[in-house]
Amino acid sequence: MTALPLPSLRDVHLARRRTAGLLRRTPLVQGEALSEANGAPVYLKLESLQETGAFKLRGATNRLLCLSEEERARGVVTVSTGNHGRAVAFAARRLGLRAVVCLSELVPENKRAAIRALGAELCVIGRSQDEAEVEAKRLVQEEGMVYVPPFDDPHIISGQGTLGLEIVEDLPEVEEVLIPLSGGGLLAGIALAIKGSLPNTRVVGLSMERGPAMYHSLQAGKPVAVTEEESLADSLGGGIGLDNRYTFPLVRDLVDDVVLLSEAEIAAGMRHLFHEERLVSEGGAAVGVAALLAGKAGGEGRTTATIISGCNVDMKAFLAVVS
Amino acid sequence: MTALPLPSLRDVHLARRRTAGLLRRTPLVQGEALSEANGAPVYLKLESLQETGAFKLRGATNRLLCLSEEERARGVVTVSTGNHGRAVAFAARRLGLRAVVCLSELVPENKRAAIRALGAELCVIGRSQDEAEVEAKRLVQEEGMVYVPPFDDPHIISGQGTLGLEIVEDLPEVEEVLIPLSGGGLLAGIALAIKGSLPNTRVVGLSMERGPAMYHSLQAGKPVAVTEEESLADSLGGGIGLDNRYTFPLVRDLVDDVVLLSEAEIAAGMRHLFHEERLVSEGGAAVGVAALLAGKAGGEGRTTATIISGCNVDMKAFLAVVS
Repeated sequence: MTALPLPSLRDVHLARRRTAGLLRRTPLVQGEALSEANGAPVYLKLESLQETGAFKLRGATNRLLCLSEEERARGVVTVSTGNHGRAVAFAARRLGLRAVVCLSELVPENKRAAIRALGAELCVIGRSQDEAEVEAKRLVQEEGMVYVPPFDDPHIISGQGTLGLEIVEDLPEVEEVLIPLSGGGLLAGIALAIKGSLPNTRVVGLSMERGPAMYHSLQAGKPVAVTEEESLADSLGGGIGLDNRYTFPLVRDLVDDVVLLSEAEIAAGMRHLFHEERLVSEGGAAVGVAALLAGKAGGEGRTTATIISGCNVDMKAFLAVVS
Repeated sequence: MTALPLPSLRDVHLARRRTAGLLRRTPLVQGEALSEANGAPVYLKLESLQETGAFKLRGATNRLLCLSEEERARGVVTVSTGNHGRAVAFAARRLGLRAVVCLSELVPENKRAAIRALGAELCVIGRSQDEAEVEAKRLVQEEGMVYVPPFDDPHIISGQGTLGLEIVEDLPEVEEVLIPLSGGGLLAGIALAIKGSLPNTRVVGLSMERGPAMYHSLQAGKPVAVTEEESLADSLGGGIGLDNRYTFPLVRDLVDDVVLLSEAEIAAGMRHLFHEERLVSEGGAAVGVAALLAGKAGGEGRTTATIISGCNVDMKAFLAVVS
């Protein structure tokens, strides 16, 4: 496959017009206690209120809207059982497309049911994520379905960037934006919107200490593999792909800093959001707040926004953290 | 004091223009599991995301904006330490007015600190809410301050009604609106907006079984006193005032039905909102969901909206309910 050009701010604006009416414009609310601690206003972008409970719907919706007539007829396939899989299933159902989610036999029934409930077909195969991926590729090659990658795709990136445009409009005085960083789709998209519109605003990525793939790749100057480790920020786990084409160069060129958080810091972020802001968040969505509380971001008087990127957390595990 | 005329839909529209830019337009989101159970779409109006964490800011803001120049100079006084007190303090600070909150010596320090943090002056006096009210009246009579009542005031009612206009705009197909009912300010305001704009839409009030003042008053045909009892829906407690002038006749004339919920049903509503929708709510904000789950509302295929009216719950008590 030929690489497409890297997406630009223009592509983010196009994504915004394309997805109009299909995405929620999520609220941006000030965190009082965080603002006081930071010595400058801190705003929370409540993307946890996006439909499907996470930002992933933005990218998936834009990706599906960019399909040709012919591709639409063939349907889409993905392998994620997390926020991306939910987003693809939801967007496909709304646009009337066939969606197949390939997953291994090890995926528990409750996760399967959640995907089925969103209207996607399940393709249960093999004993690992890798085997599910092989099946997805077969569906692409033999049946002509379109693979929807979780982050390394120009249309996915542009779609996530629509969140950044909303921040620019609601808070043009913002001086620093704190963004959860995993595969880099969210950060790349938002950075296109922010850096293009407000060139003096800092963009900071936040990952967990346990297996931060993009962080190590940036250090190495190229995509590298990491060992996955268990983390409260499990939605930030996984690699960036050794054949990464889009998010690695964009994050490399646009991010001002990457900060790593310990498990205890992430838990403190979740607890703060729950007890002070009455918000349920994934560990991976609390990393910005975690960094502010840990003194690893903020504190220099900058008006700050941080993305509460999702709320699809196991509630038993959540209660164990916040109780 | 001469009674003002009852407010109308026009007053709600005036309140909306007057408060423009000072209130959050809160999201209206579909509850998937509730919609399935109801056999028709159920939407949640997330007023818990209003600034100060509750709908009360709408009425308080409108009330303060209706003060004359002279009244503004004299400042405002109230006795609530709950959502209304927070709202008055917050709105007064933003509008640059002096606000005094009278409270008894029995109010714990954490509640006092919360009011102080919002910029209001505390006037700590006596050993009961009644004594605090006497002091508030003294401030009105001797110092010319303006008393801001929690619900029985045309401008408070019109202000709460702005929430109803947002529902009309976002969901003009709504067939039933479920509204927490206590003093009746919220219900009267929303009912003005809904019944005036969508005359065929049902308006249902929801109270707890333990001390539902408006319910008993409607039964009696006039305002009656009730004994306050402890309830998960504590924000719905209290009387409607034996000299009630506005909310009683409006609720009487506009409400289609009033439903009472048990403590167990309210707890189930809070648990559902937390586990299925990832939302923190006061017991008094979960009564609509509680009624749907208990089969005391909905189930007849009507497109329904319910107001999640606030999130200012004691988090220890909340965790005890949802864990």
